Order: sequence, then structure tokens, then C-alpha cells
Amino acid sequence: MGLDCGVHLPEVDIAFRTYGALNAEGSNAILVCHALTGDQYVAERHPITGREGWWTQVVGPGRPLDTDRFFVVCANVLGGCMGSTGPRSPRGETGEPWGTDFPPVTIRDMVRAQKRLVEHLGIRRLFAVIGGSMGGMQALEWAASYPDAVFASIPVATAAHHSAQNIAFHEVGRQAIFADPDWQGGRYWQTGRQPLRGLAVARMCAHITYVSEVALTRKFGRRLQSAPKDNREAIDLFGDMFEVESYLRHQGSSFVRRFDANSYLTITRAMDYFDLAADHGGDLAAAFRGSRTRFCIVSFTSDWLFPTEESRTIARALNRAAANVSFVEIPTDKGHDAFLLDEPDFHRTIAGFLAGCAVHAGLDSP
Amino acid sequence: MGLDCGVHLPEVDIAFRTYGALNAEGSNAILVCHALTGDQYVAERHPITGREGWWTQVVGPGRPLDTDRFFVVCANVLGGCMGSTGPRSPRGETGEPWGTDFPPVTIRDMVRAQKRLVEHLGIRRLFAVIGGSMGGMQALEWAASYPDAVFASIPVATAAHHSAQNIAFHEVGRQAIFADPDWQGGRYWQTGRQPLRGLAVARMCAHITYVSEVALTRKFGRRLQSAPKDNREAIDLFGDMFEVESYLRHQGSSFVRRFDANSYLTITRAMDYFDLAADHGGDLAAAFRGSRTRFCIVSFTSDWLFPTEESRTIARALNRAAANVSFVEIPTDKGHDAFLLDEPDFHRTIAGFLAGCAVHAGLDSP
Repeated sequence: MGLDCGVHLPEVDIAFRTYGALNAEGSNAILVCHALTGDQYVAERHPITGREGWWTQVVGPGRPLDTDRFFVVCANVLGGCMGSTGPRSPRGETGEPWGTDFPPVTIRDMVRAQKRLVEHLGIRRLFAVIGGSMGGMQALEWAASYPDAVFASIPVATAAHHSAQNIAFHEVGRQAIFADPDWQGGRYWQTGRQPLRGLAVARMCAHITYVSEVALTRKFGRRLQSAPKDNREAIDLFGDMFEVESYLRHQGSSFVRRFDANSYLTITRAMDYFDLAADHGGDLAAAFRGSRTRFCIVSFTSDWLFPTEESRTIARALNRAAANVSFVEIPTDKGHDAFLLDEPDFHRTIAGFLAGCAVHAGLDSP
Repeated sequence: MGLDCGVHLPEVDIAFRTYGALNAEGSNAILVCHALTGDQYVAERHPITGREGWWTQVVGPGRPLDTDRFFVVCANVLGGCMGSTGPRSPRGETGEPWGTDFPPVTIRDMVRAQKRLVEHLGIRRLFAVIGGSMGGMQALEWAASYPDAVFASIPVATAAHHSAQNIAFHEVGRQAIFADPDWQGGRYWQTGRQPLRGLAVARMCAHITYVSEVALTRKFGRRLQSAPKDNREAIDLFGDMFEVESYLRHQGSSFVRRFDANSYLTITRAMDYFDLAADHGGDLAAAFRGSRTRFCIVSFTSDWLFPTEESRTIARALNRAAANVSFVEIPTDKGHDAFLLDEPDFHRTIAGFLAGCAVHAGLDSP
């Protein structure tokens, strides 16, 4: 597969999961695109963490992406670490992992790989593509790159490019990984010591940006708890620690069990470089001109990582391109992560939009 | 000196600088309180960095804190690393630094040490105390602890307690330091290898919170530059790097030349534990009841680290306490750092407030 950077990958594995059944016409498929640290385990137990799928509230029988009606597909992104080709994959015949020699991938490369998967599954046109955050970037890129292969697109809590602040937060995470001597220039498999501390710090920093201040305050406020005695790192200069600190440490330490540091570098880079307007002569509307795809753009009021203004910019560009677009801002105080949480308004929005699209697409009722 | 934690420090050094002259009555002194990473070099070249003082726009002849008229004092905080007693100071007769055995200090401890300094200088009552961010916490604590020793207080871009989000960002910085093996449990002087990478990451993360998204976008947007070839850490997966990344790296690497990691831990902890209401039975107004101090509370519209709402909470409490309070929100898009930048409205506010106070305090005209 040819990549945007010019490198040709002779073989590409794309790990995926499906839910529901593809109909005879192959017209009821919905592609779910995961976010930075997500994966293909959308609606089932995760093989490493043992936790529920990350979107069980959205995908399943009777859910907004109703698996009694739709064939739902989710693939681990190119560059990921849950089975798709990425920095951890063996390079050629040596069997050694790519590591940081893995070519840089773009959001478009990820979508290109998904397109091949979708064709392989016998789907000529997706009924819908949906995703939040980086998944939303992919939902936009799908519509821009393959307008005739996407009937409907639902980009959620996303943007047409990464902002300077978003890049800055990613860069702090990358520097935290580079600062960990166990990173070893990215060749950590040679010693078996992984840069777990650096990766955990990266995750902690990113995690703060996923949550609103109100949500953090509601959840933890300034409540104290005793610092664990057996944890040398939990140095407690005051004998106690704040609950929010303990929570962040847990976020960091549980994350590193399931994620690869080089994948984190590769994928954050892909997000940072995403700039759909720049790919179309600086005009975002040009990315969608003539498109017959139906769009539903969703943002959340308290999302400060991908603020509503970014979604509004997308909606305006789609309007300029005379595309078919709905734009919904969901009132919530949960922040960016709201797309992963129990947000009935959001779920009703998806279900309603898809119901309308199903009629227009001539899909049979369930 | 007795500390809030119960430890008694037999000797305490407080490094300070003064500008202007104390009048015969000792009534024209203004104490400037510095922020987390600031120091006493307010209006003169910094001995390590060689850069201008951090508040030359505010302190000097003809400036808002007019040194032709006022005697301006600034002291390095207790726990700091620019000459005041802190984790880098020798402990007892061994000559070994305190390191992480340095007792936890609170904002009140910092203010207690400043009070001794001020008395030592022959000042019974400060004409004013002023500070931004952590300096603003001290300006509040001064008024609460020594109401009769402060004629006027100007807390800028601050809060009466640290929020869960603020604590979370500090915790990421601390974890970045702990994750650096050169931290060595805080005893890094034993090997001469300091945790410079961890401290740099902490600074980078904090720096993002000091700036508004608009300011970051205006300054850097998504502009690219070539990655420096001689920097192994500047791994550039895409051959280029964003200017904002280069800027952050510079912020991190220049910071570590002048700051001590253990001081960073001590001071961030002091900020996290600051909770003026909790110290007064949960009622912030109780901290100021009966106070005759004149307050000028200043916030900045685009400050998302210490949002205007925090200042409003302080102003409301002062109103409940029947204190004399002005509250000014300065419109700016520069974020938290605005108090350090060229903000004419802010500077006029300080100058005007001090002019009025000078009349009430019976200070002679210059």
C-alpha cells in the first residue's frame, strides 16, 4: 500500500471486528472509526484489559448503531498496536519491529487502509462512517477522499485540523516519552524495558484535556486520600494526596498495559498533521464540493480540546460546498470525553439522523 | 521558624531585592510576591539567565509601582531555589541538601517568612502587597493573616484555592520529574545528574496552561520549521516540526538552567494545598472579616488556569465580609500570562488603585 509520505508498504494487516450482519445488497454497513487510544473492540470485552467495549452504549441491538439492522465494522488504525500494521510489526524478513523507522502515516493513509478493508468485505458504499475526535477526522477524510463510497458521515467532537494548543499538548506527551531512558531511541524491544513511565505521563497529560474542569471538580474537587504506602513514586510531601492525583496515576498506569509508545508517537503525529483545508488548496469547502454525502456534525458545549467553533467551521464549509449538513451542539458539562459517555441527547441525535438517512438510502426497515 | 506542618526550621534565609527608598515613616513599602517559577529579580537583569527582570513593565521609575515614590521589595519564596531556604539548602551540619526531606511549606509559611523580612526592614505596615498567580495567593494570605500590616492588597489572576484541574496539571509535572531516573528519589546531588528532562517536560506542560489558545494560534498557528539536525530528541517523524513544538522545547530547556526540581515539587505542592476558605471554617468571608485592607482583585478574560470566576468568588467573599474591594476584569486574549505582559489596561488599573490608596494612606505626593 502506498503511503502519503511516498513509502510503499508491501503488506498491510488491518485488524477489525464486526457486529451484526451485512445484508445481501451490502448496503447496511457502518464504519466506526476509533480515537487516538481506542481500538477495534467497540462492543465487546477487551482482550487485554477485560473491560467492556468502549462504545457499548452506542453499538448493539437496539442501540443508536443498531446491530439488528446495521453491519458495524471497526478496524484498528494503520500505525496502531492492536493487530494492524504499525511500529510494533515486524519489518521485512529480519523479524525486528519497525520501531521509529515505521513510516509516518496520515489520517488519509488510515482511511485508505480502511477503504481496502471495506472493499474486501464486499461493501462498495458505506451506509455511514462515524467517529469521535481522531475518529471524526477519519469520518471527514472518508467523505473527502471517497465521496461516492459514503452515504452518510457523522464527525463527532472533532476538527478539520489540529490547533496549536492541541499540537502543544501532544508534544508534551511525546517529550515525556523521549525523556524516558527506557525509550532507547524507540528500540525498546531490544532490552525488554519499555518506556512505561514516559507513556504514562503522556497519557495523564492528555487525559486532563479530555475532561472538563466542571467534571473534574464534580468527580474529585479537592478531596484528599492517603497515599499508597507501597508506591515509591507516590511521594507525598504532605502525607496525603488529592483523589484527582490518584485517579490520574491510575489512568497512566493502566494505559501502558495496552498501548505501545511508538504507536502513540505515530498516531499523535498523524493527528497533528491533519489539515483537510491545506490538502485542498486552503479551502475546506473544496474538500466537499459536489459531495452527495449527508453530514451530521456533532460537538459538545464543554469540550475545550475540540471546541464547538471547530465543528461550526466544518459546518460552514459544508454549507459553502452546498452539501447536506446538520449541525448539533449537545449541552453537557463532561468535556471532550462526552462522546464516550452516557449522553442521551447525543445518542438520540445519532439514532434520529441514521433513521432519516436509512429512508433516503432505501434501506429496509428492520 | 515554625511551619504549618509542625516542623521548626532553626535558621531561615530569605533572599530579596529592593528598588527605590523606604521613607522615614516606613510607610511606602510595596511587597511584590512572585509566581511559581519567578524569583526576586523583578526589575533587574537575572544573574543566571541574563534576561531582564520579569516585571520591568510594572516596577521602576514612573511605572505603576513607581520606584521614585515607593520602596519595592521582592523575596524569593521559602522553598525556592534562588537563595531562600529550600530543598537545595544544606541541612544542619552535614552540609548535605535537604532534598525531598525538606518539610512541606504552605503559602502561609511563605507569607510568614516574608513578614519577618518586612519587620527586619523596619516596615510595620506594608502600603501594598501585590502578586499574580501564586503571588496573588500570597497577597490574599497576607491580608488574611496580617490584616493590620497590609494597607492594600492586589491579588492578580489567582484563586482562593487550587482547582482539581490545576492540581491535575501540577501532578502531571511532578510525575514527569519522578519518571526521570536522574531524579533518584530527589537525591540527585549525589551523582551530579539532575532530572533535567523530567523538569523540562513539567515546564512544557505548565507553559501551555499559561497561554490562551488564541495567543498560541496567533503566535504559531500550524507553521512548520525544520527540526534541528543535532538534537537526538527532536525526532521528526515527518521531517519537519511545528514551531509551537520548538517553542515548547525551548521553554523547557531554558527553564531547567535556573530551577531546581525539588523546589518545583515543594512549591507546586504549596499551591495545591492552598485553600483559604478551608483554613477559616469553610467560609472565605471569615478570612477577611473586619479587615480594613483595601482590595483590588484583577482577572483576565482569557485566563483559563485561574478563570475570572475564581476572582469573582474572592470579590463576593470580600463583599460579604464588608471589606473595601474593587474588582476589575481586563479584556485580553493573552491568557494567564497576561499579568507578565504588556497590558496597558492592567497597568493603568494598578497605578490608579495605588494612587487612590496613597491619598487614603496619607502618603505624600512624589
